[in-house]
Amino acid sequence: MQIRALIGWALLALVAVPAVAVPVAASPASDKLRAAVRGWREANERTLLADYSAFAAMPSIASNLADVDRNADYLEAQLKARGFTAQQLRARSGTPASVFAERSTPGAKRTILFYAHYDGQPVNQPGWLDPPFQPTLRTAPPASAKVDLAASAAIDREWRLHGRATGDDKSTIAVTLWALDALAAKGLKPGVNIKILWEGEEEAGSPNFGTIVRANKALLAADLLVMGDGPVHQSGRPLVSGGNRGIIDFEATVYGPARALHDGHYGNWVPSPTVMIADLVMQLRDDEGRIKVPGLASEVLPLSARDKAALAALPAVEAQLKGDLALGRNIGTARIADGYLAPTLNVRAIHGGDTRSPAANAIPTQAWASFDIRLAPGQTMAHVKQTTEAYLTAQGWHIIRTDPDAATRLAHPKLLKLDWGDGGSVAVKVALDTPAAKAVIGAITRSSGPPVQMPLMGGTTPFAEIVEALGAPMIGVSVANADDNQHAANENIRLGNLWDGIEIYAALLADTKW
Amino acid sequence: MQIRALIGWALLALVAVPAVAVPVAASPASDKLRAAVRGWREANERTLLADYSAFAAMPSIASNLADVDRNADYLEAQLKARGFTAQQLRARSGTPASVFAERSTPGAKRTILFYAHYDGQPVNQPGWLDPPFQPTLRTAPPASAKVDLAASAAIDREWRLHGRATGDDKSTIAVTLWALDALAAKGLKPGVNIKILWEGEEEAGSPNFGTIVRANKALLAADLLVMGDGPVHQSGRPLVSGGNRGIIDFEATVYGPARALHDGHYGNWVPSPTVMIADLVMQLRDDEGRIKVPGLASEVLPLSARDKAALAALPAVEAQLKGDLALGRNIGTARIADGYLAPTLNVRAIHGGDTRSPAANAIPTQAWASFDIRLAPGQTMAHVKQTTEAYLTAQGWHIIRTDPDAATRLAHPKLLKLDWGDGGSVAVKVALDTPAAKAVIGAITRSSGPPVQMPLMGGTTPFAEIVEALGAPMIGVSVANADDNQHAANENIRLGNLWDGIEIYAALLADTKW
Repeated sequence: MQIRALIGWALLALVAVPAVAVPVAASPASDKLRAAVRGWREANERTLLADYSAFAAMPSIASNLADVDRNADYLEAQLKARGFTAQQLRARSGTPASVFAERSTPGAKRTILFYAHYDGQPVNQPGWLDPPFQPTLRTAPPASAKVDLAASAAIDREWRLHGRATGDDKSTIAVTLWALDALAAKGLKPGVNIKILWEGEEEAGSPNFGTIVRANKALLAADLLVMGDGPVHQSGRPLVSGGNRGIIDFEATVYGPARALHDGHYGNWVPSPTVMIADLVMQLRDDEGRIKVPGLASEVLPLSARDKAALAALPAVEAQLKGDLALGRNIGTARIADGYLAPTLNVRAIHGGDTRSPAANAIPTQAWASFDIRLAPGQTMAHVKQTTEAYLTAQGWHIIRTDPDAATRLAHPKLLKLDWGDGGSVAVKVALDTPAAKAVIGAITRSSGPPVQMPLMGGTTPFAEIVEALGAPMIGVSVANADDNQHAANENIRLGNLWDGIEIYAALLADTKW
Repeated sequence: MQIRALIGWALLALVAVPAVAVPVAASPASDKLRAAVRGWREANERTLLADYSAFAAMPSIASNLADVDRNADYLEAQLKARGFTAQQLRARSGTPASVFAERSTPGAKRTILFYAHYDGQPVNQPGWLDPPFQPTLRTAPPASAKVDLAASAAIDREWRLHGRATGDDKSTIAVTLWALDALAAKGLKPGVNIKILWEGEEEAGSPNFGTIVRANKALLAADLLVMGDGPVHQSGRPLVSGGNRGIIDFEATVYGPARALHDGHYGNWVPSPTVMIADLVMQLRDDEGRIKVPGLASEVLPLSARDKAALAALPAVEAQLKGDLALGRNIGTARIADGYLAPTLNVRAIHGGDTRSPAANAIPTQAWASFDIRLAPGQTMAHVKQTTEAYLTAQGWHIIRTDPDAATRLAHPKLLKLDWGDGGSVAVKVALDTPAAKAVIGAITRSSGPPVQMPLMGGTTPFAEIVEALGAPMIGVSVANADDNQHAANENIRLGNLWDGIEIYAALLADTKW
């Protein structure tokens, strides 16, 4: 299996054109490191699963401070037990903490700051097979049958541990701790000074993260930032990325009659909020994903030759994705990653009228939709906001910030309440050919084969803040499976991704040289 | 107050041009009847309110058979106590009953069949001030303060009794029973033979009503049908109508990926069901209410000269409605009732994605919307269905009837599940100048002033079935206030409408002559 896998990598290396050339020659030290870490993991899989289940069982939705505080206390203790100096950094009391820790390595000249987040998305989606904070071991989808671990002789790499935040992003935290344990158990020394910053409200849009970073620049200073959020490539290969898109979000509410009305007696004469909200959506984008706001994308930076080469070198995953997701078509660009260097306007939710089926014959008083715009490199939040509002105003909407009173309703034919989220961030993009990035790619290649090199991830992290504040290069290194249902019901982590993640993070700690 | 009201009627009769001329001269017998009924009501208001609260407290959503059966038993007993022969008619066991009753009047040559329905709309709308089946007395909106009846010396006509079905349509049933009581208490005799048919699943689309009517033609035979559903005119004046629109409804579901996905990593490439459902809505109608389905309205009968005259004679209510509903605009025709003689496509509900705010950053797997189409006279359900499906197919949708499997998803770029409700009915329209209709208008005019004559109501009743099956003329006579929030939260009946309704129904029973 291992030999076959190595042949697979070699073939891929021949077929694909890596954007950044990396040393792929095997190294005795690297081989010894991988074998030691793998041996430790194989001897401890059941303990690791139990540990991880306990961690994932702690609710971690950022809006519940008591919950995230419990996670922060747990992580602080875990890090202190591993010889770190640890503390919780907060923008102000009453907000979630980022857990910061550091441990120096005698003789090391470089410092790596590892970022991940321990909070998870809300869990109110329908369709969860298990309570979101009752981690449950299941076979791979679509069967997703419950696994009786006690009755199983072996542990299957394809099994999934279901639960909120198991994939996004507690998995990265777990493999970091385990990589430290594996090195310690085998008497192996890290090659760098280690700093850790694990955020507690990334899924809430990181409203306080920038404040924390700016207030602690000296503490966080490092030669390289490793950003451990987001899934690996859909091909299953390890993934490194040169950054991620930004995000800005807003909620839109439209208004009909002051009270709900019988739609037989009034539907022909009273404006319908369920239609108005659909109209708003189609004014903003079309079914093919094209954004209709003039000038919204005018700041987007053009693709560099290196971006184009990197995108062209990505393994094709589209046919597999269509099968996996049961899609009869795609929208946008033919290759999924090509779209990451442009903005995307997503309609996260649209709601109006009775939620029951069949719905009551009534015209509701209002309807709402929730949007996010993923920002490409170069785009600023202020410009996106301004062009969107100018366009909507030109479409006849009168924009308001709070629910209207009767006089406001009477004065304007089409009212639109826009509520821009107070989080959001711009994109961050770092070239993958800096010495530090090349060192990371080399370490992963020696440990786990050549990673897919992605110029930019489609999702968002708050890394723009930290990169700007600290002035260090950044590289993304992913752990979770691409089909981990992050942000959705039945979020899960594939066990093979946890196991491989330990080897990748051990290599980052012990085999990154520049 | 009474004199002023009479002057008001006279003025209105001068200003408006009634579509059908009616005898407006006062009649000593009619005056005596009204005075007797009013005196009885004034002496019994507290008892009547207590009785009606007990009736409205009985849940009556058609989908819960045990609940509607309890109402039917109650009504059967009420009618038997008033000397009626009563029974419950069902299409088959396990379906809601229509309560049928009859009582002959010695010497009467005409028979009137009175229709109403005792079931109410579902109650899952947000915003109820009180539990929907805990009838609560409140002052008029917008204050809607709770009233302490025991502590009040007088009962205000403007007060409202809140509760599901209080307006739509138990109010008509209550005033019918009370009119019978008032006549009996004052020793006054009805002028006609009385038949009653009170349906138990009108708000569920009357799926079994046609079967009941067709199976009981002889029992239901009458010279006139009085349809007691729907509110009075927005001007507050009594209302008679020559029929109502039909309805057909459907639920539409569209499909995205087989599992929910992170919208940052997939939003640029994976079709979005929240956008597709908005697109579907805007393909079917626009914000101004214009239906976009070619040929859907091709069967609509043209307006007659009498319709045009009747519409022109309606009191203007639009400015008052805009103020009352806090509307900055209207859609469709300038005059609301002008739109009743054309079809209306309503979007009752639209739902996709997380219901929480802020919504999760996910692409959901599907989204749905619920529609109804109000049918104008002449339109058939088959034609509307056929033109709608042909149009949607031409828009690129592949129409399915059940949720798709993976193979179906993969085979079609745009899937649309259409679920047409199994109820529905065509419009019914009867001229208001038949002798029987003129007799009704005359009786109401002598009792309560000239009613507004509406060629057609915007809403729907199942009366098309009964009119067709029985071949008798039909006239609608309304009781509830126009702002009764029927089909919505905080449904209510204005006490003045209950009190006036007793006088109107007593006049129908005792003063209708042809």
